[in-house]
Amino acid sequence: MDALECIMSRRSVRKFSDREVDNETLRKIVEAARFAPSWANTQCWEFILVKDPAVKEQLSTAMPEVNQARKVLVEAPVVVAMLGRRGLSGFYQGAAATDKDDTWYMYDLGLAAQNMSLAAHALGLGSVILGLFDAAKAERILDVSAGVSLVALMPLGYPEKTPASAPPRKPLCEFIFLNTYESPWATGDQDLCFIEEGNPVG
Amino acid sequence: MDALECIMSRRSVRKFSDREVDNETLRKIVEAARFAPSWANTQCWEFILVKDPAVKEQLSTAMPEVNQARKVLVEAPVVVAMLGRRGLSGFYQGAAATDKDDTWYMYDLGLAAQNMSLAAHALGLGSVILGLFDAAKAERILDVSAGVSLVALMPLGYPEKTPASAPPRKPLCEFIFLNTYESPWATGDQDLCFIEEGNPVG
Repeated sequence: MDALECIMSRRSVRKFSDREVDNETLRKIVEAARFAPSWANTQCWEFILVKDPAVKEQLSTAMPEVNQARKVLVEAPVVVAMLGRRGLSGFYQGAAATDKDDTWYMYDLGLAAQNMSLAAHALGLGSVILGLFDAAKAERILDVSAGVSLVALMPLGYPEKTPASAPPRKPLCEFIFLNTYESPWATGDQDLCFIEEGNPVG
Repeated sequence: MDALECIMSRRSVRKFSDREVDNETLRKIVEAARFAPSWANTQCWEFILVKDPAVKEQLSTAMPEVNQARKVLVEAPVVVAMLGRRGLSGFYQGAAATDKDDTWYMYDLGLAAQNMSLAAHALGLGSVILGLFDAAKAERILDVSAGVSLVALMPLGYPEKTPASAPPRKPLCEFIFLNTYESPWATGDQDLCFIEEGNPVG
């Protein structure tokens, strides 16, 4: 699949078929995460591939009760638990090097997660990123070590249903500026405020 | 370019040619960021495309003096300032919804940044993500509003020099687990601890 097409056609998938995901496919997906850039190449990410139905069932109890995510977690053939080792990303000689303190692991996990979801999509799989759950409870279920934080859960599998259109996005004129903040980016040949939603340039 | 090839062949580029980046190309790159997923589709990201040499020069003074990043900033035809609007990502009804508090904007910026760097690579451009600088000073230079944080600077342009190989990555056995933490992922048909660096499966 073409790279730009992959980026523009990825959708969050919440309904998976029963089809298993083989190890070779999983390996390509984790290799994609592995090759994300990271703060000073610290690679603070760690991933648990949860396939055991009992563990998925337990994990689902860490989701809010009203959240349809419980069903997604249990039904997906694989749930990737995305962890960040703390105190590495954003640090220099053992101390936080920026005003972001110890939060750069969130950024690096985002970089790796996007590589992962794009690789999955390119291989015909779907995924969704879940962040709203009781992380402390899920960390206990997964036996996560001290110094490592569970950031997100990514159910992964072959889509049974893929949303036809993307959720609407803000027009470019609302969040792209030129040279300084609040100086709009005007390209001259097009009106950046009238983009067809779900029909982007790609 | 094939999507998996794009993910595996992207390198951080720190040396750019003089060639300008046209608006159509920039637009494809920001569209890629626009179509990243985000917390409840909050799209907290905002981007300033810095082309003005005077602003790039000023921004370079926010980098550490010993950092070669000063030179990269000034030489790149475009520097994308990546901003996050606070208090949106990770929030529900106005309150932080997880133990990550107001740090999910870092994660969402990571998702968008990776889409951006992959789109750039697919279009023949190179980029690098810089996080080590005086963000408060750079925010003043860019006139960033209160409630918005400057996260990273991404110099962008046509590569004059692209690193031939990727910085070494940890072997999969060090950061991929099965079902629970510290239970290694053994695929049976291959030793995950002996991957050729820079020659990944892709």
